This record gives sequence, structure tokens and C-alpha cells, in this order.
Amino acid sequence: MTPVRAEAVKNTKGVAARNKRFHVPGFLASAQSAEVKKGNTRPDLGLIFSAVPAVAAGVFTRNLVKAAPVQINLERIVKQTGRAILVNSGNANACTGPGGLKDAQRLSRQVSQALSIPDSQVFLASTGVIGKRLPMTRMTKALPSLIQSLSPHGLPKVSEAIMTTDTFPKLISEEVFIGKKKVHLVGMAKGAGMMHPDMATMLCFVLTDLAISPALLDRFLRKATDQSFHLITVDGDTSTNDTVLVMANGLAGNPVLDDPQTPGARIFSKALDQVLLKLARMIVQDGEGATKEVTIRIEGTRTKEEARTLAMTVALSPLVKTALFGEDANWGRILAALGRSGIPFDPDKVDIYFDRIQLVKKGIRKGPKEEIQAGLVLKKPSLTIRIDMHQGSAKTQVYTCDLSLDYVRINAEYRT
Amino acid sequence: MTPVRAEAVKNTKGVAARNKRFHVPGFLASAQSAEVKKGNTRPDLGLIFSAVPAVAAGVFTRNLVKAAPVQINLERIVKQTGRAILVNSGNANACTGPGGLKDAQRLSRQVSQALSIPDSQVFLASTGVIGKRLPMTRMTKALPSLIQSLSPHGLPKVSEAIMTTDTFPKLISEEVFIGKKKVHLVGMAKGAGMMHPDMATMLCFVLTDLAISPALLDRFLRKATDQSFHLITVDGDTSTNDTVLVMANGLAGNPVLDDPQTPGARIFSKALDQVLLKLARMIVQDGEGATKEVTIRIEGTRTKEEARTLAMTVALSPLVKTALFGEDANWGRILAALGRSGIPFDPDKVDIYFDRIQLVKKGIRKGPKEEIQAGLVLKKPSLTIRIDMHQGSAKTQVYTCDLSLDYVRINAEYRT
Repeated sequence: MTPVRAEAVKNTKGVAARNKRFHVPGFLASAQSAEVKKGNTRPDLGLIFSAVPAVAAGVFTRNLVKAAPVQINLERIVKQTGRAILVNSGNANACTGPGGLKDAQRLSRQVSQALSIPDSQVFLASTGVIGKRLPMTRMTKALPSLIQSLSPHGLPKVSEAIMTTDTFPKLISEEVFIGKKKVHLVGMAKGAGMMHPDMATMLCFVLTDLAISPALLDRFLRKATDQSFHLITVDGDTSTNDTVLVMANGLAGNPVLDDPQTPGARIFSKALDQVLLKLARMIVQDGEGATKEVTIRIEGTRTKEEARTLAMTVALSPLVKTALFGEDANWGRILAALGRSGIPFDPDKVDIYFDRIQLVKKGIRKGPKEEIQAGLVLKKPSLTIRIDMHQGSAKTQVYTCDLSLDYVRINAEYRT
Repeated sequence: MTPVRAEAVKNTKGVAARNKRFHVPGFLASAQSAEVKKGNTRPDLGLIFSAVPAVAAGVFTRNLVKAAPVQINLERIVKQTGRAILVNSGNANACTGPGGLKDAQRLSRQVSQALSIPDSQVFLASTGVIGKRLPMTRMTKALPSLIQSLSPHGLPKVSEAIMTTDTFPKLISEEVFIGKKKVHLVGMAKGAGMMHPDMATMLCFVLTDLAISPALLDRFLRKATDQSFHLITVDGDTSTNDTVLVMANGLAGNPVLDDPQTPGARIFSKALDQVLLKLARMIVQDGEGATKEVTIRIEGTRTKEEARTLAMTVALSPLVKTALFGEDANWGRILAALGRSGIPFDPDKVDIYFDRIQLVKKGIRKGPKEEIQAGLVLKKPSLTIRIDMHQGSAKTQVYTCDLSLDYVRINAEYRT
């Protein structure tokens, strides 16, 4: 297996080195402020452009209420070809009716005309407030200079432009060798609502110069999404705007990947899994108001699906999440959450560990010493709660964060 | 229909009048501090005693993890006869293993021996911290004086002894005439966790001097529970300790109710519905950290079950609940919650009202004026969000509260 390199950028320092690292041959990008929210001076409009037609695959929200850009993408993704992604923060263009759809179509047309590409190869993404029409005048005005400033080193700027309540940009690069050709992957994402499947929009874009068939890219993207974004508590059936898009422009020159069983395909699939999982975990770490990342690992179930249901029930419990925030090793709330999950099990067999500390043995607390030690584990910024159900041999893990005072502050004041 | 009188007591003033109002012939009660939590001086141990054997019915948590007192009650309720309820706050006696079960059995035996009643006619209820053994020495020591102080006017004191994070006791009295006999009902409850089905324990006791068959009492209790506690966001499958118990001692002297179709049965059933619904709504009003009570009313669905799923999805959404706390008429979050409920509907048909203000018409905002007016509605302590799906003629409503900073504070610091 070729070694994989992945790095997160949590600040905006070392710009030159960073721009080089987050470059994918054939992709240009730019971002700037279009004052999507009036008076905003941060970049809030971004553009990604592939110099050649790229194979495209996408996974979109399962919410019945779909934002205008998602409606457009769903039509266009069936052609499996893309050239551009126009993305804005500050306004979700969701629940904006036929007018909002027309706004999105107009923006797409302006991009396709300026770049001389088919309109059907432009994808759109929006995130922000629901129910407000886009400020079309300001956005239209910003487009020419956005297009003029397209650059091979523009991806980091786009990763900043898509932030809403995120506290840091989420950007990942990987390189793999496939058939002796170096293949680049750059992924970016935004969160950051975290506590429940109806939270804030999740956007993710992955750009690569790999040559791959559309069917295989689609297959690998779905697998990678299931093993990443669907294992954090922002999952598929969430906001009106959730969007994961991958574009592969083929400029790496590798033989086109078409068979999932070949070594090259396996290398790429694993790299894509890594990129998405790392971005997903960065979203959890940056969950709104989160003070710690918590992995909920369920073992010893009859099926993997049972493990997932148990893990999600614990991960979504407000009582468990507030106890994590309070650094209280409240294992009773964990047992109570397991008990209402609908999955049958014997409560007298359950073991619970906080990292390496066994806190619960056969359904009751092991001792006061372990409770104190578990309390110390809770002071760490990242920890794993491992639960052995002793009902079988299946297992899974999900990623979540705590429920803090800041979560409520952020979401009570979001629009004011 | 005989007029029904119901009153809530939100403070401890007017004790004499209150004690008279909350009296049911044949029932004695008392409460005192047993220091269930060491150093606690508030009453935390209560006893209710029926001078004659009473018909008993109960509804208990559907959580797989059941506290010791619930395990005992489930065995005893099949005999449909009760004489006493011993209840404590400060400790849930849940997840305490075989030792916890023996503690509960010992307490029951002490009560039954002191009162000379069969052990199988003693019911138990506990609420508080999970996973800690009961302080048996202190509780056993308190029992003799608890029994000595049994009084016809003790029910209000018990309603105070069962409080945990509740900010006021929840106590209701009603009187109805059945076959020219005056029948008394007194109900009490405790909440107060509110935001999600896994919240804090809900306890409810109803005492009445009605004469009724065990089967009919059980039937009426289940119906009343479905229309009250199962319509607030603390519902049946919640904590390890949830308990609703009714005892009817027959001293009113009415002909024993046995047929649900008789006028007397209908009068009693309606009164029981009222008592439970009012207690349920008091729990919502006193939800942990709650600043407002919100009724979510869904209309125009194909079935009542669809309406309930939609209403519960909105009522449980942390994004909706934090917006309510922020007094932000964020209808987009409501639409997004509806959209992820799994119920099919046409988003372009949905109307949303905040009390009388129509905020959303056919899936989009009606106008800025309505949004300002809806914001004013949100300043009220109690409001109704009415949503017309325009898919059919079924409807329902559920009761919830907002998610506040104090909710997080209360639950992060509960054990510390």
C-alpha cells in the first residue's frame, strides 16, 4: 500500500506552502466577498473550475425539502460530468420557492457563459439562512472578478468561503501512486451543527486528477460517504442543502480505473475513504460549541446495523451529551439510552469503558476508583466510549461531540 | 356533563385550603426528609396509604433497562390491588443490580409489616441519580415517623417530596358526580427533563375514591396516558423509572363502574383524561430550563400517526427548540424538520401559523410583516405552532418546550 499523506490546516499561516499542498493539476479556484450577508467582508462566494471536463459524482440530502441548488444538482449529476462548482455561504437558498430556483439557474448561466462551458456542467451549493432570497445584484456583480481571479492555488480560499459557524477551515490533501502516476486529492468541507440529524448544512467537495469511470467514482463515493459522513451525527437525511461532490479530471494520466478489484482502484478507494473520514471527524471536532470529540464504539452486537442504532442513540442523547460537557462520567445515562434504542439485549451483560478505564461491568458500576479515573478521561479533548453488549460479534463506531452552553447560544442567536 | 373543577398549586401558600382541596376519602399520606441525598433537608421520602384495599392500575417505562422499583411494580400490578405507594426522590435505584432489587424489597417489607398489609400491595417509585445504591440506613430510620405522620391532608407534601429539578409541585384535584355520588380525584406528577424521549423520570400518582372494576380502570388509564404523557416529549419509552399509578378505593359508594359505555364511566374517563393532560402540560411548562410552553399542532395529514410523527420531529428538533429559546421565528428550521421526518408530503403546500399569524403560505414565507408579528408571538410564555400539511384531514397536537442555556447548565451539573 502506498503511503498516504493527510494534513489538516487549522489556521491561515504558511500560506505559500499550503497553497502548493492543496493544488490539484487542472483545477482552478477563487473566492471573495460578495456580501451575501450584507456588510460581510469575509469571502462568501467561491468558484472551483476544472480546465477539462471531469467525471462527477454526488451524494445529496435525503431531506424531502431540498434547497434550490440541490434540486439543480440532482438533475445534472445524472450526466456524471462537471466543470465548475459555484458555492456561497450566508444564504442557503432553501424554501425560496420558484423564485429561488430561478436565482440559482441565473447564477449557473452566468458562470457557464463566462467560462464557455455547458450550463449542465455547473454545480451549485449554498449554505446559511433558510427562507431568504439570494442577493442577486451583489452576487452577479461579484462574478466577473471571481472568474478573473481563478488560480491553481485558490482551493484554500474556497474552504474559507464556505464556513458559516465553523471556527476553522476543513481542508485535506492526499497523494497516492496509481500505475506509477502520482494522483492528487484535495478535499474540503464545512460543518458545523452537530448534535442531531437535522443540524446545519454539511458541504464537501473533493477534487482529484485521477482518471476513473463515472460508475466506479459513484460507487466509491457512496461507500466513502457511508463510512464517514453517515457515521457522524450529521447524517444523510439532514439539512435541506447537504451536498458531497467529487470531480475527477483524469489529468494524472493513469489508466482509467474501471474495475473495483484492481490494486489501483483499491488504493484510490482507500484514499477517498480517508479524506472523507478525516473531514467528517474535523466537522465533529468543530461541532457547534463542541468542547470534545467523542467516539462511541459499540461491540458485541448480533449485526452491524444493531451496533449503529445503539451507537447513534447514545450519540444523540441530550442527557449523555450534556454530561460529557459537564465532564461527568454518567454511565447511567448511557445505559438508559441503550435501553430505549429498541435493540434487545441483556442489561446485566453490558460493559462500558472510557478509553481504557472499565467503568461498568455486567451492567453495574465497577467501583468509585474507576468513576474518578473515567472523570479524568473526560477532561481530554478526544476520547472513546466503548460499550460491549456481549450479544454477538458485530461492531461499529460513530463520532459525536458534547452539547455545550455555546451550542445553545450559537443556535438561539444565529439569525439575530 | 357534570362540571369539572381543576386547579394547579404553584406555591406552598394557603396550606389549609389546599389540604382540604387535595383530600380523597380513605387515603392518608405523609412525607419527610430521609436524607436520601446526604445533607438534604427537603422532604424526599413520601408514603400514600389507602385505608381499604384499592383497585390499582399502572403504566411503566418501556425502557429495556428498568429500575428496581419498576421491576417490583410490574410483578405486583398483575394482581390489580394496592394499598400503599412508597416514593423517594434523590436516588433512582436504577442500574443497581441484584443489591438494588433487595433494597427495594426490604423497604417494601418494612412498609407492609408496619401497616399490616400484604407485601404485594405495596408499590414503589424512585427518582434521582442512576447507579447509586439507596441509603438504606437513613431510609429505614425515617420509616416509623413517616408512617406515624400519615394524614388525610398529606398528599400535597408528597407532591413536594417527589420533586427533583422541578421548580414547582404538580398537583391537581377534580370532583365529578357519578350516580349522585361525589367522586374525588387527586393527581400529582413530577417532571422535569423535557427535551427528548430519554429525559428525566416522570412519576404520576392518581388517587380516587371511585368504585370501578380493575379491567376498566386499566383501560381508562392507558387511554388517558396515550392522550397526555405520550403527547409530550417525555413519552412512554423514556427513563428507567417512568411510572404512572392509579388507585381507586371505592369509598365514594357509587355503583361499581364496569361498562365503558355508561354515562358514569364516560364522566370518570373524561375526568381522568383531564387530570393526566393537565399534569402533563404542567411538566412541559416546568421542563428543565424551559422559558415557554409550545404546542405543536399538525393538521391535514392522511393519518393521525403521520401527524404525530411530524409533530414529534418538530418538537424534538434541537434547532427548532433553540430558535424558540432565541425567540426567532425560524420557520425554515421547522420546514427542514418536517422534511426529514420520513413522512411524504408536498413542501409547496405547507402552511405554518404562530398562534393566529400565518408565517408560511404554500412552503414560503408570507412576508416580512408576518415574521415580525410571529416574533412577538414568541415572546409569550405559551404559544401554538400550527402546521397545515394539506395532504388529508387527520390531525394531532403535542406539547413541548424550548431548549435553553439553563437546560444545558442543569444537565451538565446534575451530579456535581
